[in-house]
Amino acid sequence: MLHDAGSRDADFITVVRSIRESLLAIGGAEPGGDYECVLMQSGGTFTIESVISSAIPRDGRLLVAVNGAYGCRIAQTARVHGIEVETVNVLENRRIAAAEVSDRLHASAFSHVAVVHCETTTGIVNPIEEIGAAVAASRAAFIVDGMSSFGAIPVSLEAAHADFLLSSANKCIEGVPGFGFILARRNALLAAKGRARTLSLGLYAPWAGLEGDGQFRFAPPTHVLLAFRQALDELEAEGSVAVRAARYRRNYEALSAGMSQRGFEHYLAPEDRGYITYDLSLPGGRCFPV
Amino acid sequence: MLHDAGSRDADFITVVRSIRESLLAIGGAEPGGDYECVLMQSGGTFTIESVISSAIPRDGRLLVAVNGAYGCRIAQTARVHGIEVETVNVLENRRIAAAEVSDRLHASAFSHVAVVHCETTTGIVNPIEEIGAAVAASRAAFIVDGMSSFGAIPVSLEAAHADFLLSSANKCIEGVPGFGFILARRNALLAAKGRARTLSLGLYAPWAGLEGDGQFRFAPPTHVLLAFRQALDELEAEGSVAVRAARYRRNYEALSAGMSQRGFEHYLAPEDRGYITYDLSLPGGRCFPV
Repeated sequence: MLHDAGSRDADFITVVRSIRESLLAIGGAEPGGDYECVLMQSGGTFTIESVISSAIPRDGRLLVAVNGAYGCRIAQTARVHGIEVETVNVLENRRIAAAEVSDRLHASAFSHVAVVHCETTTGIVNPIEEIGAAVAASRAAFIVDGMSSFGAIPVSLEAAHADFLLSSANKCIEGVPGFGFILARRNALLAAKGRARTLSLGLYAPWAGLEGDGQFRFAPPTHVLLAFRQALDELEAEGSVAVRAARYRRNYEALSAGMSQRGFEHYLAPEDRGYITYDLSLPGGRCFPV
Repeated sequence: MLHDAGSRDADFITVVRSIRESLLAIGGAEPGGDYECVLMQSGGTFTIESVISSAIPRDGRLLVAVNGAYGCRIAQTARVHGIEVETVNVLENRRIAAAEVSDRLHASAFSHVAVVHCETTTGIVNPIEEIGAAVAASRAAFIVDGMSSFGAIPVSLEAAHADFLLSSANKCIEGVPGFGFILARRNALLAAKGRARTLSLGLYAPWAGLEGDGQFRFAPPTHVLLAFRQALDELEAEGSVAVRAARYRRNYEALSAGMSQRGFEHYLAPEDRGYITYDLSLPGGRCFPV
């Protein structure tokens, strides 16, 4: 992070390329397969808005399955852009069942369905594979907000039937904040061409740039990207997402035991919990959810 | 930059507040005066889009005075949002004269006028004080893209009649890339309430948040912000923007002399040049424009 790379230098372009490849690998995508990676210089909400405002056409209809604040925010984002949106509303301490989504998809046609994988607000984990199968059966495109899960819960883009899965540098990959990333099915990216409702949050154009000369359209946060490469190296050194998940689980057990002793009670049933808890012992370490 | 601050911690909030105050001081704004500062977690183009898409009402009309690629981009940004926009087009190696803007403002009514202070593409400097006086006389709001000038060319927001002046962390303040900032007249910010065409690039809401509990609405790039505080301290240690400008001028003289010896000729007349040239001797130092 202390190296001042030029964003158009060959070395930096090589790092960016390797970051995109590593992220695809974490999503279980084969090199040369159906998935692509786009980096978006900004934060998580900007990254979600990039997908919502760039992927859904003017005549599209979005269904958002909501059981927390971040699901609400996806619906809010779509409304800001005048996108027709409906929600499946589920209590905050209850997982979204695939059948609830499926029922709505049978009742009405939607072009896109969005769901939050792990709601930061409670830590609840939604069954994206089952929901994704229901979405795929309806031929809608599936958008997964993996902000608080990607890197901590093993995920296969294919198995989740995900057309877009997005997250942020500073969550479970353990980079520093400053950009987000989108893993997308190539066909979904190609379909997004010409649909962007903004200039800077457009999705197709930065992908075309990264695929072309490997450069960002607009100046990227170079230091944050170099730090992210290091974070990916540390994830690889740790072993795998499953190994990291086990560490988070141990952190969770320690936190949970201590808080139970002090009289706190769990809000979520054991089977619904994400068990994602950052290291408590690190300098600057944070509990999760924050 | 190596400290992992919590974005909601009191210490970090204090740093953010001091950054906003320092930026206002560089713009010559008095504490408690008419100007406010908003920080936007993203890059320069995102920051321009924030102002264009948040400040101009649905029935607004934008005039952009253009003598380079970044002026073009402002007009392009407005068009993406369906904003009615016209341009005054000037050759790339000629300053925009206030009279050219004034004539257009007499011929037709515009709610907003935008101009780039220093065009990164050529280094040409436009006379924002004179243009601003013409804009103020027409009662339009004045938007100044100070991306490549703020911190290197002394500027007074009042003298420039600027309603919005924006720049980026990684230009002449010499921070690392990762956010932009907007210095805005308070009345212009208040008028922007409810006008935002996006969620994440909205201008009024982040300002209200920073003014309220001092926090960002959405996770900020904490490390980049801490590095920026250091960059501001280094600017203060250097003496002033005028002292920095003199250093850039010396860099320019060295670069210009060497390139003239090698047969290069100047594209701009001496009186139009920005004379902004980063240190060539620093590790990772870059020439400017890049």
